[in-house]
Amino acid sequence: MDNSNFVTINEEGPREGFQIESASIPTSDKIALIDALSLTGLREIQTVSFVSPKRVPSMADAEDVVAGLTPREGVAFTGLYLNEQGLRRAIATGRLHIEGGISLCASPAFLQRNQNATPEQQRSSRRQMISAFQEAGIDITYGSVSAAFGCNFQGDIPLDHLLSTVADIFAIAEEFGLHLKSLGFSDTMAWATPLQIKRTIGAVRECYPDIEISLHLHDTRGMAIANAYAGLEMGVRTFDASVGGLGGCPFAAHKGAAGNLCTEDFVLLCEEMGFETGIDLERLIETARMAERIVGHPLPGAVMRGGSLASLRKAKLAA
Amino acid sequence: MDNSNFVTINEEGPREGFQIESASIPTSDKIALIDALSLTGLREIQTVSFVSPKRVPSMADAEDVVAGLTPREGVAFTGLYLNEQGLRRAIATGRLHIEGGISLCASPAFLQRNQNATPEQQRSSRRQMISAFQEAGIDITYGSVSAAFGCNFQGDIPLDHLLSTVADIFAIAEEFGLHLKSLGFSDTMAWATPLQIKRTIGAVRECYPDIEISLHLHDTRGMAIANAYAGLEMGVRTFDASVGGLGGCPFAAHKGAAGNLCTEDFVLLCEEMGFETGIDLERLIETARMAERIVGHPLPGAVMRGGSLASLRKAKLAA
Repeated sequence: MDNSNFVTINEEGPREGFQIESASIPTSDKIALIDALSLTGLREIQTVSFVSPKRVPSMADAEDVVAGLTPREGVAFTGLYLNEQGLRRAIATGRLHIEGGISLCASPAFLQRNQNATPEQQRSSRRQMISAFQEAGIDITYGSVSAAFGCNFQGDIPLDHLLSTVADIFAIAEEFGLHLKSLGFSDTMAWATPLQIKRTIGAVRECYPDIEISLHLHDTRGMAIANAYAGLEMGVRTFDASVGGLGGCPFAAHKGAAGNLCTEDFVLLCEEMGFETGIDLERLIETARMAERIVGHPLPGAVMRGGSLASLRKAKLAA
Repeated sequence: MDNSNFVTINEEGPREGFQIESASIPTSDKIALIDALSLTGLREIQTVSFVSPKRVPSMADAEDVVAGLTPREGVAFTGLYLNEQGLRRAIATGRLHIEGGISLCASPAFLQRNQNATPEQQRSSRRQMISAFQEAGIDITYGSVSAAFGCNFQGDIPLDHLLSTVADIFAIAEEFGLHLKSLGFSDTMAWATPLQIKRTIGAVRECYPDIEISLHLHDTRGMAIANAYAGLEMGVRTFDASVGGLGGCPFAAHKGAAGNLCTEDFVLLCEEMGFETGIDLERLIETARMAERIVGHPLPGAVMRGGSLASLRKAKLAA
């Protein structure tokens, strides 16, 4: 358990957001947003996903986006890939920070629907990915579980099933003599509630007391910020988030607005509660407004409209 | 401290929402929404506010709205009033459930700006209100504090100042030999964070262990659901909320979208965590969509778009 005062936020807005937005957003706008994000104090930014341009036309310019980014000291640009082909594309850019992981889906029904695979087939493809990472000299550092808290197609994911999925990850790691540093849980279809977050993290810590835990939270049912708070209370110090609340999973049968945990709302929560994030909230709010201009429709973030408390305190002092 | 499993929700959408919406919403639409809400299992619905039609033109039809409502057994319709004139209008309808209270503002700056009064003048006007309640034979049952957690004009509200505002309420009650049953805290300008909610409620309970506490939470900075969850964890079992997240305070200098704790999102949180609310969530979601049609623009609620988990579980069973 990490009781430190520092909360690490992995910005996923560009990847999460542009993935489900119109394919007509200019590459230069994507680059401008990522460059602006890299000046806010964020240390890790997921920029693109290397998926089939046929399936996700809005990511067809992934290589061009990465090629156009301005490198920034202390900022790691990453990319998402779901298979060896995507991994090879990410490596080929020569500009991305790449860590390997072992990712399993906790929902057999979603796995079937989304990747046309059984859990056994997924485990087998993960073993192939590990070989691909090792051939490329990439460290394999993390495990992650998608649909960890429930699934629109499977229903609830019982805790013992989730724990067995986690056990599968560690079993695969052991086959290859790997030591995983962190374990991520993704609420892919927004089934989590704060109580479930607490129960799940409590149970995982009971089994794996030394692993660092991270959370990836969607806001489809308005619970993301409460779930993040529950995670903080349980000692989680690493979170994915999206500027402006950009995003959603295009394959998860979300009805209507989905969106992720909103980065600037979460930064306000953290900073007001005494955690450090290293992020300049005012600058991040400006960047959220820029994201809104780029996508051309309102984003769900609240603080970008309501303003930070720090700015109100400062205005009061100046008055 | 109330450890019961039942969470009471006071619906304030009609009053909070229509107050800041255009004055052109037909009275019949307001009545239709309140009647629909009264069929969802909600037991208390704040319908209108009796304020100056000059200051709040959208509430000029308050009497007509109340006159048009269909009474429903087990459902209390209430109205908001801020002074004796408003109280007399509420009484004159003959159709509203009226309880008296002692309400103080924790922010001298907001009080000055919003009501052009000093704290001493406010206490004095509250004594006059008590006399008015008593003359009308109305029980005085609650205390409430507005701007309890911070203020755009005052800045932070230190906990000892808040506690002294609460002490003022009890001192006034004692002058009149009144026994207050409950104490409400309003985050009028959305300054609260979950940590502050916990600290505040903990401190209040320490001083007043037997009082029932309620929370009125705004979502201007996206914290309402996390703050409500923190309240639940501290044993709070009574919350104001607004269907669809309607609302905001027109006098609180909110920039952009404000909105309240969203009723259906909060019901989902409660029910998924094992609390009972007595509310039919599916019916409430339909009513939120009706509210959206009436105001003619998207409301901030998430569950009205994302759907309930119960409906997904049921769809899975039927498949």
